[in-house]
Amino acid sequence: MRIGFVQFAPVFGDKEKNFRAVKEMLAGTIADLLVLPELFATGYTFKSQEEVLSLSEVPGEETSLFLKHLAGICKATIVAGFIERENSSCYNAAMMIDASGLIATYRKLHLFNKEKLWFSTGDRAPEVYTVRGVKIGMMICFDWIFPETCRTLALRGAQIIAHPSNLVLPWAQQAMITRCLENHVFAVTANRIGKEQRGEDDFTFTGQSQITGCRGEILAYAADDTACVLLTDIDPSQAIDKSVNPFNDLFKDRRPELYSL
Amino acid sequence: MRIGFVQFAPVFGDKEKNFRAVKEMLAGTIADLLVLPELFATGYTFKSQEEVLSLSEVPGEETSLFLKHLAGICKATIVAGFIERENSSCYNAAMMIDASGLIATYRKLHLFNKEKLWFSTGDRAPEVYTVRGVKIGMMICFDWIFPETCRTLALRGAQIIAHPSNLVLPWAQQAMITRCLENHVFAVTANRIGKEQRGEDDFTFTGQSQITGCRGEILAYAADDTACVLLTDIDPSQAIDKSVNPFNDLFKDRRPELYSL
Repeated sequence: MRIGFVQFAPVFGDKEKNFRAVKEMLAGTIADLLVLPELFATGYTFKSQEEVLSLSEVPGEETSLFLKHLAGICKATIVAGFIERENSSCYNAAMMIDASGLIATYRKLHLFNKEKLWFSTGDRAPEVYTVRGVKIGMMICFDWIFPETCRTLALRGAQIIAHPSNLVLPWAQQAMITRCLENHVFAVTANRIGKEQRGEDDFTFTGQSQITGCRGEILAYAADDTACVLLTDIDPSQAIDKSVNPFNDLFKDRRPELYSL
Repeated sequence: MRIGFVQFAPVFGDKEKNFRAVKEMLAGTIADLLVLPELFATGYTFKSQEEVLSLSEVPGEETSLFLKHLAGICKATIVAGFIERENSSCYNAAMMIDASGLIATYRKLHLFNKEKLWFSTGDRAPEVYTVRGVKIGMMICFDWIFPETCRTLALRGAQIIAHPSNLVLPWAQQAMITRCLENHVFAVTANRIGKEQRGEDDFTFTGQSQITGCRGEILAYAADDTACVLLTDIDPSQAIDKSVNPFNDLFKDRRPELYSL
């Protein structure tokens, strides 16, 4: 199974330009799973609720249409961040989509910093979806710091965690090693690069997108300032085996009756 | 608050020799909390249940007496691994003790490898104890790979995790950075060094004992082959603050109603 990510610098507010950038970067790429950054088409640093609302979509609108088209070209299932609107609520969300259409959306459970000003917090439990016989879960950026996110997905059977990100803190890439090691899952952390200076906010996104193996190995790793597509071939069945040695199993050895969580 | 660890190579089965080694290494040391390795007085690589039983103790026997004496000399609270016997069961345990006597024992919840042949699995939830006004929890070695262990202790208020270890895998030191970062706790991982070749088993213990700060900083780090005592001064009140920024709090932002754990 070929999995990968797109790392680039979205232009704030210009969906068409960002669609073109991603499509050009992926020209000629064939893969099974491709992960794009959080909010890849809109940018990240909002100044008002009106701005968020104006860039939001319900599934089926332009970002869905673009990704469905792109999925057909790349023969891939794609996971990518977008602003999902439902009634008057906007969510920092990711969609999983392929050439036949939308598979699911995930609404970020743990909003970071001023995202709390703009977005409603995810209101649905993280689910796992079977794509080409492989179980895939989604989480977004800051979800990484809560071990419960990845654990919940892994306990629900996820073999691969698709992890669209707009990271500004320096720790996630290293922590993803722990997440993959403690759950025996693969992870694709698709981060963005570039700066966004808008209003009083001035973010530098840290790149270093990473594909982490299900025994904590770093399988692919991007620079902190380079737009790139990285792909790697994995055997997702390795993520089914939770044994550490003949005596230990990461899931069977858990003691939920003695935890206070 | 001065906290630290003793890293050394215990001699299998010779408690008196190990007591002397630790006492000599700590001569002149004054600290508030000292952590010794897992099974520091007995060694690790057992060949029979009789051997385990013969090295086991109920609290109040020689290891407790030695540690109580040592705690008086160092003016410290000490956490150290030992084999705790209750009725016919033996536990891979740690005791917390000071000059006035035993504070508590902890029985390892996640036994590693052949430990399952020799020990009963811990049967009590991890608790937190207030020592000199600071809340301290205990976990042992392989407990590190289960995020629930450290999370449970942190949610119960632990500011410092005392982590006696006999590590043979290479990942724990890095994972403890994630554990401390995701919980804003300090951790003292006291590992042993040296080899034990007994029966068909041949273990090399990885040293690199580590004191990790409550924002994921490595505060002290030992070599992989050197017996040593390392100490560092910390402000344990830093571990009470779970905020990441004005909008985020590691505990308040959790979504337990949406996790499946």
